[in-house]
Amino acid sequence: MRARPNRKQQIGRAVALACALMATAALAAPAAPAAAELAPKKSLSEVIAASSAGDWRPLDLNNTLYMELPGGRVVIELAPPFAPNHAENIKTLVRDNYFDGLVVLRSQDNFVVQWGDPDEKNPRPFKNAKATLKAEFTVPLANDTNFTRLRDRDGYAAQVGHSNGFPSARDPKTGRAWLAHCYGMVGVGRDNDADSGGGSSLYVVSGHAPRHLDRNITVVGRVVSGMPLLAAVPRGPAPMGFYADPGQNIPIGTVKVAADVPAGQRSNFEVMRTDSATYQKAVEAQRNRGGPWTKVAAGHVELCNAPIPVRPQK
Amino acid sequence: MRARPNRKQQIGRAVALACALMATAALAAPAAPAAAELAPKKSLSEVIAASSAGDWRPLDLNNTLYMELPGGRVVIELAPPFAPNHAENIKTLVRDNYFDGLVVLRSQDNFVVQWGDPDEKNPRPFKNAKATLKAEFTVPLANDTNFTRLRDRDGYAAQVGHSNGFPSARDPKTGRAWLAHCYGMVGVGRDNDADSGGGSSLYVVSGHAPRHLDRNITVVGRVVSGMPLLAAVPRGPAPMGFYADPGQNIPIGTVKVAADVPAGQRSNFEVMRTDSATYQKAVEAQRNRGGPWTKVAAGHVELCNAPIPVRPQK
Repeated sequence: MRARPNRKQQIGRAVALACALMATAALAAPAAPAAAELAPKKSLSEVIAASSAGDWRPLDLNNTLYMELPGGRVVIELAPPFAPNHAENIKTLVRDNYFDGLVVLRSQDNFVVQWGDPDEKNPRPFKNAKATLKAEFTVPLANDTNFTRLRDRDGYAAQVGHSNGFPSARDPKTGRAWLAHCYGMVGVGRDNDADSGGGSSLYVVSGHAPRHLDRNITVVGRVVSGMPLLAAVPRGPAPMGFYADPGQNIPIGTVKVAADVPAGQRSNFEVMRTDSATYQKAVEAQRNRGGPWTKVAAGHVELCNAPIPVRPQK
Repeated sequence: MRARPNRKQQIGRAVALACALMATAALAAPAAPAAAELAPKKSLSEVIAASSAGDWRPLDLNNTLYMELPGGRVVIELAPPFAPNHAENIKTLVRDNYFDGLVVLRSQDNFVVQWGDPDEKNPRPFKNAKATLKAEFTVPLANDTNFTRLRDRDGYAAQVGHSNGFPSARDPKTGRAWLAHCYGMVGVGRDNDADSGGGSSLYVVSGHAPRHLDRNITVVGRVVSGMPLLAAVPRGPAPMGFYADPGQNIPIGTVKVAADVPAGQRSNFEVMRTDSATYQKAVEAQRNRGGPWTKVAAGHVELCNAPIPVRPQK
């Protein structure tokens, strides 16, 4: 982590401090042998700067949602291959104006932020959308037609990688694939019954990736812009972070499908193609960083630590 | 993720919806064979409830810091075995009142929150503390006298586990150990020079664990209470989240060593002993969850997904 740059201080050594150092030296020594400095390597920023236009794809406007919060817009890209029925139902909910005027109603530290209908006694009715759907916790491998494997071994799945810009996992033995619960991924709230969700209650991962939820939740997509608006909401009370006081709920203005919004009001982003050679360079820039700041390269990148670059379209 | 509980909706099926379902069925079928429901198992809460007093240890008051923010107190436990010189220097800084009136000056989404001196032109002088120290990125294995290995394979280190309540890693071949950059871990800011930090600039991990920073930073301890106060601060602007407008800086009232605070003003927490049999049960409760909500047990727990329970002392 960088300290504020360019500050040199001159400090004299007090006898007391020297004694303290000697006392701790027994605990601290021997120091690791000074390693050779790492040669500089292309950083992620440099890989991005050197990329070509064809290394990027625009968001799929028919599967992109704009959620307007007081602080600004959250952009969510849906991944229909991994949750076709839920993606469709969520768009129906959006076009029913179901989410308009609902709220962000939960924030649990190092876990999730959740939004939906806060009124249990008098819940908002569904119009064209369904209240619940059969679970889509995993899909057949054949659904996932654009999978680029990440070679780094994963503890939670036989194979992991990226599927058209989404972090995913798969088990060739069972023939199933699923999206991973990395930071920013959006999933469908449910009760104990596997088929009790439908997309009207959604959450986003806002802490360390809870990979134990993989294959237990229908994961529908990813926040590609505006994550700070969700991640910085105040945490609610234990145990699950649901706001106790309705006054804490954060109002949602509208949620719209990007394709339904006039072109001049769209947020035009592009995502690095995860099946591109450039993407391999981006991952390698994280897996093996060069100097001068980095002293030891990790030699490994875990799925949820692999960047998936997003930038405004030019 | 739980939806709001106990809401049943009756939705008729429109022909249009049936057609949409048939269209997506080709993509969705065949569904995974319905798995047998998981038998219930002790949850983490139940393991905690069943624990005995001896399964917990109080915070080390001589190595615990209280940082007062407008929203409340952040409690940080230092881990001197892993950074003896930095732990000592940070306590000296605290006793110099160095941090009093400084600020939280950076929040980068899915990365860190950082605090220290915002004034580069006229930096606060050091009194008894040192401005910089030799790096303590790793320590000899012999420093880590209370290591309980986590059997789950890790991609970033030969061995991982817990050291007296702190997530750690080690390499028996090099004979070195270090703290892992899990959520809530506190590290020392530095510039490119390995020895350019000293503890006056500190940050906490506020997103997915950036394990690639392991062995590149002196990690000094863990936030054990008050993390929501840091995690929910607004994010600063790209690229690194340093607040551009000083008005956004969040004031630190005081930072004190717990032992220096009158007993009636202390925050008395206890941490589950990570070398206890009960802790193994806690980890297993995460590694292999039981039903009814969970449908598929992960069979794996990664280091930064292993809980380290903290609770107020009775």
